[in-house]
Amino acid sequence: MTLRLHNFFRSSTSVRLRSALNLKGLEYDYVAYVLRDGETRTPEYLAMNPAGLVPSLEREDGQVMTQSLAIIEWLDETHPAPPLLPRDADGRARVRALAYMVACEIHPLNNLRVLGHLAKTFGADEAAQKAWFTHWVTATFDALETTLARDAATGRFCHGDTPGLADLCLYAQVWNNRRFDISPDPWPTIARIFKALDDIPAFADAAPPRQPDAA
Amino acid sequence: MTLRLHNFFRSSTSVRLRSALNLKGLEYDYVAYVLRDGETRTPEYLAMNPAGLVPSLEREDGQVMTQSLAIIEWLDETHPAPPLLPRDADGRARVRALAYMVACEIHPLNNLRVLGHLAKTFGADEAAQKAWFTHWVTATFDALETTLARDAATGRFCHGDTPGLADLCLYAQVWNNRRFDISPDPWPTIARIFKALDDIPAFADAAPPRQPDAA
Repeated sequence: MTLRLHNFFRSSTSVRLRSALNLKGLEYDYVAYVLRDGETRTPEYLAMNPAGLVPSLEREDGQVMTQSLAIIEWLDETHPAPPLLPRDADGRARVRALAYMVACEIHPLNNLRVLGHLAKTFGADEAAQKAWFTHWVTATFDALETTLARDAATGRFCHGDTPGLADLCLYAQVWNNRRFDISPDPWPTIARIFKALDDIPAFADAAPPRQPDAA
Repeated sequence: MTLRLHNFFRSSTSVRLRSALNLKGLEYDYVAYVLRDGETRTPEYLAMNPAGLVPSLEREDGQVMTQSLAIIEWLDETHPAPPLLPRDADGRARVRALAYMVACEIHPLNNLRVLGHLAKTFGADEAAQKAWFTHWVTATFDALETTLARDAATGRFCHGDTPGLADLCLYAQVWNNRRFDISPDPWPTIARIFKALDDIPAFADAAPPRQPDAA
C-alpha cells in the first residue's frame, strides 16, 4: 500500500497521524501544504477534503480519509500490530477519554485558523493569542495531569507501558505548545510521558523539526 | 446495571450521550447540573471528573466515565445492539470522521465556557458571540453538507439507513445551534437527516426541552 499524507510539519493533528503511521511501520509519501498561504483552500484540495483541513490520507485505491483520530482508529483496525488501544473495553474507554481531552478540549481552540479568526475579529495580537492558547492548554493539562497522576493504569505511558492513542495526542500537543513557549514541566506526569515518547523514534521522527517542510 | 448520568439539559455532548443510551435501551438516573452556576466546579464533581465538564457517566461499580464519544464507543462495545458503527473498517472511518467534524471542529469552539471566556477576555457581547458561534457552525456545516450530499454511502441517515455515531453528533449540534437561532435549512442534507432523527423517540427524548432541568 502506498499512502500519500497531505499535511503540514507543525500541525498537531499531522504529528499525531505521522507518529501512528511510524508506529505501524507504514511508509508514506509526504505532501506538504503551507496553511498560512491557503494551500488547503484550493479547489483541488477542497475536492479531496471539503473542510480544507490537514491531515488527509490518500490511499492507493484513491480513497481519501480525513480526521486524524478517525484515520488512526482505521489504521489500528486494519494494521493491528502494535495495538494503539488496549484489548479491554474499559481500557479503551480510558485511553479514548484521555485522547479526547486533548483532541476535543485543547487543539480545536488553539489551531491556526482559530488564532487567525481571533486576530481578525477581536484584534487579538500575539500576546492576546498566547494568553488564549495558554488558557486552554492549562485548563485541560491540569485535569489531564490529575487524571494521569492518580490512576494506577498510568504507566510509562498514558496507559500502561505501551504507547497508544492518548500518547499520540499528548505528544503532539506538547510540541504544539512550544509555539508559545509553554513547557510541560508544571505537569510532571505529562512531562515524564512526553520525554519517554520522545525517546521512541516513531514519535521523534514525527516531530515538526524533522519534517521536510520545517522552516 | 444502574447508570447515573451527570449532565445538563442543553449541553450538546449530553444530548449525544442521552440519545445513545436511549438507542441502546439503557435506563439511567438523571442528575442535573447548572453549568452557569459552577455546579461542575465543586470539589465533589471535580473528584469525579477533574475537567469539570459534562457529561459524566457513573456506573454501578462506582467507576466514572468521561468524554461523551469515549463513553459512546464503550456503550457500543459492551452493548452491541443496535450498532452505532458500521461493521466494515472503511465505514467506521467514514462515520467517525463525520462525527469528529462536529465534535472536534464545531462544539469545542462554541460551548458555554468558550463563549464566557470570549466575553471576559475580548468583551464579546451577545452579537459578537453569535457571530463567533455562527462562523464555526457555517465553516463545518458547509463541509459536512458537501461530504454527505456527494457520497452514495449517505442514506436516510449519515451512513445508510441506521442511525449511528455521526447522527448522534449531528442531531445534538442542530439543537445546539438553536441557541443562536441558526436553522439547518441552508444545509438541505443535514436538515433532512435531522428531521429523520427527530422522528425517532430515542433522539427526540434526548432533546433539551424534554429534560427535567429544562428552563
